[in-house]
Amino acid sequence: MYPSAMRVREFRESDWPQVWAIVREVVRAGETFVYDPAMTELDARATWVETPPGRTVVAVDGDRVLGTAKMGPNRPGPGAHVSTASFMVAADARGRGAGTALCRHAVAWAREHGYAGMQFNAVVAANRAAVDLYLREGFAIVGTVPRAFAHPALGRVGLHIMYLEF
Amino acid sequence: MYPSAMRVREFRESDWPQVWAIVREVVRAGETFVYDPAMTELDARATWVETPPGRTVVAVDGDRVLGTAKMGPNRPGPGAHVSTASFMVAADARGRGAGTALCRHAVAWAREHGYAGMQFNAVVAANRAAVDLYLREGFAIVGTVPRAFAHPALGRVGLHIMYLEF
Repeated sequence: MYPSAMRVREFRESDWPQVWAIVREVVRAGETFVYDPAMTELDARATWVETPPGRTVVAVDGDRVLGTAKMGPNRPGPGAHVSTASFMVAADARGRGAGTALCRHAVAWAREHGYAGMQFNAVVAANRAAVDLYLREGFAIVGTVPRAFAHPALGRVGLHIMYLEF
Repeated sequence: MYPSAMRVREFRESDWPQVWAIVREVVRAGETFVYDPAMTELDARATWVETPPGRTVVAVDGDRVLGTAKMGPNRPGPGAHVSTASFMVAADARGRGAGTALCRHAVAWAREHGYAGMQFNAVVAANRAAVDLYLREGFAIVGTVPRAFAHPALGRVGLHIMYLEF
């Protein structure tokens, strides 16, 4: 029934327990995000639940949150015309297109809001699922900082900067 | 008498008025930093005066603060073995080597503290003084995000990601 039963909508307060479960799982694994693996629930909320001009969304199937995204300006001031976004999908919901749906949603939102492009600042080069998804969606690898990410199994791997100009 | 009379030392509380004058001048100009040009003094303090493991230093000639730098981990968690740093020099103190002295000080500090390299996340491509300084000090341009910085006179110019692996 996927992805036909899936939709992306605004984050609501009542989503937080499920969103936190996803963020905790992803951050504790330490394989894909440059977040502190010991991040508390309060830190996670402050990091993941964006305030305007940014926003946070969820990919849901009924009441089940499959994944979540946050988006907004990549930098303040003279960098604020470039957007950024981050995506997390629950481990047991992967392969159903939630990541792709969230990425397309974020890009569409950024285009509609007049951003000039979308930049990802630190994509783990070993995270092929993410890198391939972004490449399919039109992002280019601007450059790679070698050995900048300490992967728990693979050791130090590169971090890509990726960009899609609108 | 420059740069022989210049030295780099730890930031002290009593330096703040002079450091804030430099930060305000640089940020209001809007030509080199992706900071909000309307940044308040309180924002500037929170942004510029680092707490451990990061730190903030000043380049001084006697009681005069010529420039300032902050340094620390570029990212938390699995990215914390890469350092970053930022540098600002008072407009009327440029050309005396304060930027070079601050950059060398930050790189030496990061090496001593076991970092694997130093990354600059957003170097304005049109800021030739900074780009040339970093290239002279051994940094490479990892990539450039095109038109990612809105320069008040030049329009949208690129932002370099620069890296020096130790």
